[in-house]
Amino acid sequence: MGIKTVAVYSTADKDSLHVRFADEAVCIGPPQGTLSYLNIPNIIAAAEITNADAIHPGYGFLAENAEFSAICAENNIKFIGASADMINRMGDKATAKATMKSAGVPLVPGSDGLLSTVEEGLKIAEEIKYPVILKATAGGGGRGMRIINEPSEFQKAWDSARQEAGAAFGNDGMYLEKFVVNPRHVEIQVVGDSRGRACHLSERDCSIQRRHQKLIEETPSPAITPEIREAMGQAAIKGAEAIGYEGAGTVEFLLDANGDFYFMEMNTRIQVEHPVTEQVTGFDLIKEQIKVAAGEPISGKNYYPKAYSIECRINAEDPENDFRPCPGKIISLHLPGGAGVRVDSHVYAGYTIPPYYDSMIAKLIVTADSREEAILRMKRALNEFVIEGVKTTIPFHLKMMDNDQFKSGDFTTKFLDDNPYETL
Amino acid sequence: MGIKTVAVYSTADKDSLHVRFADEAVCIGPPQGTLSYLNIPNIIAAAEITNADAIHPGYGFLAENAEFSAICAENNIKFIGASADMINRMGDKATAKATMKSAGVPLVPGSDGLLSTVEEGLKIAEEIKYPVILKATAGGGGRGMRIINEPSEFQKAWDSARQEAGAAFGNDGMYLEKFVVNPRHVEIQVVGDSRGRACHLSERDCSIQRRHQKLIEETPSPAITPEIREAMGQAAIKGAEAIGYEGAGTVEFLLDANGDFYFMEMNTRIQVEHPVTEQVTGFDLIKEQIKVAAGEPISGKNYYPKAYSIECRINAEDPENDFRPCPGKIISLHLPGGAGVRVDSHVYAGYTIPPYYDSMIAKLIVTADSREEAILRMKRALNEFVIEGVKTTIPFHLKMMDNDQFKSGDFTTKFLDDNPYETL
Repeated sequence: MGIKTVAVYSTADKDSLHVRFADEAVCIGPPQGTLSYLNIPNIIAAAEITNADAIHPGYGFLAENAEFSAICAENNIKFIGASADMINRMGDKATAKATMKSAGVPLVPGSDGLLSTVEEGLKIAEEIKYPVILKATAGGGGRGMRIINEPSEFQKAWDSARQEAGAAFGNDGMYLEKFVVNPRHVEIQVVGDSRGRACHLSERDCSIQRRHQKLIEETPSPAITPEIREAMGQAAIKGAEAIGYEGAGTVEFLLDANGDFYFMEMNTRIQVEHPVTEQVTGFDLIKEQIKVAAGEPISGKNYYPKAYSIECRINAEDPENDFRPCPGKIISLHLPGGAGVRVDSHVYAGYTIPPYYDSMIAKLIVTADSREEAILRMKRALNEFVIEGVKTTIPFHLKMMDNDQFKSGDFTTKFLDDNPYETL
Repeated sequence: MGIKTVAVYSTADKDSLHVRFADEAVCIGPPQGTLSYLNIPNIIAAAEITNADAIHPGYGFLAENAEFSAICAENNIKFIGASADMINRMGDKATAKATMKSAGVPLVPGSDGLLSTVEEGLKIAEEIKYPVILKATAGGGGRGMRIINEPSEFQKAWDSARQEAGAAFGNDGMYLEKFVVNPRHVEIQVVGDSRGRACHLSERDCSIQRRHQKLIEETPSPAITPEIREAMGQAAIKGAEAIGYEGAGTVEFLLDANGDFYFMEMNTRIQVEHPVTEQVTGFDLIKEQIKVAAGEPISGKNYYPKAYSIECRINAEDPENDFRPCPGKIISLHLPGGAGVRVDSHVYAGYTIPPYYDSMIAKLIVTADSREEAILRMKRALNEFVIEGVKTTIPFHLKMMDNDQFKSGDFTTKFLDDNPYETL
C-alpha cells in the first residue's frame, strides 16, 4: 500500500524477520511479554517517537485489549482493530453472549455473565447438566479453559483456569457453559466499516484442534450446506452490526451433528487462519483492515468460496513427545512453492526460535479446485517443506493428509483426542 | 496427482531440488547438455529402467524436439507434449507460418520458408524493406536471431546466427522477416486435447525483454482490449486446431501501436511464464498437460483473467555488469510469502548454481485485484526476497516497479534497449 512501517520487538526477537523488513524498528523491552509486547507505555512511546499514525496489533498480546485500544485513541493513534467499547462488548464473552442473545443468535446454555464463586458455578452446572466448560472471559487459543465432568472437579479447574488467565491476559474473569459434545468448530469471517455496515466472507472449519489449539483450518467447511452458511453468515452480520463493529472480526460457532449452531465467541481481531479466507474469496483482509481504519467503506457484499483452501500450522513442536515446544536454531530451511501454495512466516535459515512465545513458525496454505486436490497439494507441499534443527508439526500434518477420516471430511473437535499422534 | 516421479539429472545438478524431491532419480551424464539433457538414449534408458509411463520434458532442452517425441512414442513412453508431427509443423517456424497463413492468421511479411543463401535473403529483404530479422527455425529464447538494418550487415549476421543455432539446437535453418519496429510481445496460452478441440486462456504480455530474453511477464496485457483478446484468442485456437494440437502451447504475436497483431511463432511446450496465467484463471497448466496426455478431454471453454498477475524472473546475473551470469554458491536464501505471492524455484540455501545452464534461479509471481496493486505487491515481495552469495536481477526488478513508464503500462519490446539498467 506504500505505507511506511515501524516494527516493535523484544530483545528476544531482535533477529526476527519483521524487524528486518520494517522501515524502522524499535526495541520495547526484554523477552517477557509483560515487559515488552504487553507493555503499553513502551509501545505508545515507540509510536510517538516514530510518528506512527496507526498501530496494527497483529493477533496476539494486545490485539483484543480494550485498555490499549482506548489509550491509542487518547493519543490520537489509530488502533487498527476494534474500539475499546466494541472489545468490551465482544471481548468480554459474558457480555458478548448477552449481545448475541438479543440479536437472536442461538447460544449454548450457561452462566448469565461472569461467575463470582465456585458455589455459583456448581449450581449452574447442575441446571445445564455436565459436562460443562469453564472459560476465561478474556481468553483465546485455549488458555484459561477447563472441561468439568462432575462437581468434584470444579474447584481445581476454577483455580487453575483463573491462574492461567490472569497470567496470560491480566484478567481472570470466568464464565460457564454447557459443553457441547462432539461439535465442529465453524467460524464466520466478518468485516464492518465505520458506516455501521458489515458483510461476511463465509466460514472456516477449525475442528482439528489439540487442547483447543487449532492445527488445521479449511474453507469451505466439509460439514455445512449453503443454507447453514447463509444462516450462520447472517447471524454473524447481525451480531457485528449490533455493536457497530468496525474492522475484521470472527464469530465462532459450535456446529452439532444436526446442523444446529451455537454462538461461542467473537474475536475482535484478525485470526491466524485468515489466509484460507483470503485464498478462496480473493480478499486481502489485512489491507481491508487498514482501509476500514482509514475510514473507507466496505463493498457491502458478502463473499463466497470460489475454491478450496487448507492451512496447516507449522509449529516448532515435537509430535512424538506430546507436541512439546521445541525452540532452537533453524539450521536449514526450504519453503515449498509452486501453484496454489502460500507460506506466511517470520523465520529463516539461521534464525533461533526463542522459547518465550507461541511455537508457531509458519503457516502453510494451499488452494485448489476441490478438497481432494487441496489435500494432495498440501501433501506435496509438506513433503517439500524442509526445516532442519528443530522438530515441527510437519510429520503430524503429513499423517493427517493420509488419514481416511480427515479425508472424508467427517470429524469433530474431538478428532485429535480420539486419535492421538501415535495412532494416526 | 499421486503420480510417482523420476528425476533425471546431470552430475552438475546432483544437488538440485528436483533430484531431492522426486521419488527416484537417475543420473544421465556429465554437465554438458549434449551429453546429458540432450542425450536421448540415456534419457530413454532412464525411463525404461524405472518403468516410467510418461516423460515431462519441462521447457528447455528436448521439450520441442520432434526426434525425441518420436523416439518416446516408439518406446511406448508417453511424451507429455506435442507429437513429432505437431512439433515439425509448428517448431519449424517456416512451416508454422504456412499453417497459420492458411488458417487466416495475419503474418509478418517475410521469406516463404527457409533461406538457402545470403543472396536469396538479400533479395527478400529488399522487397519487404529493412530492418529485417533473421531467425533460426529451431530457435527460442533469442538464440540464433539477428536484426539486420542494411544489406552490408547481412553476411555477418547470417554466419553468426547459423553458428549459434547449430550449436544450440543442432539445426541451423534460417528464415527472414520484416522487423516490426516497437511492437509489444503478446502471446496466447492454448490447450488442446486428443479430440482435436482447443481453448485459449487469454494472453500474457512479455514485452519487457533484454536481448529477446523475457524478464517480466504479466496478464492481462495493459495494451489490449477485450476485442483484441478475443481476436487473438480465436486466431490462436484456429492455428492450434489446424494441426490437431494436443497439450499446452503458446501462440506468440507481435502487437503494433494500431492494435494489429502478427503471428510470430508457436511454442509447442509449457513456457517459463505460465504461472501468471494459472494465477488469473485458476487453471493448473502442468496438471492439465498430464490430464490431456492421459487422454482426458479439455472443458472446451476459454478462460479469462479474473485478477492481475506479474512474474519477475530472478536470474543469477549481475545487472550492474551487463547482466553477466553469476553462478556460485547461495549462502543465504529467504523467499517472500504472504497474500498473493508465489515462488517457483529449484534452489535453496547452500545450493551451488552450476555455470552450465540457464541463469534463472526462481520465478517470483504476484497476483492482485489491479495492476497497480500487483506492482506494489511485487515491490514488497522483491524487498523481502533475500539471496546472498550471488548477484541477481532483484535490483533490476525493484527499479522497474518504480519506473513511471512501466507503471503506466505504455511500453514496447524496445523498452530495455532504450532504458538500460543504469538509467532506470
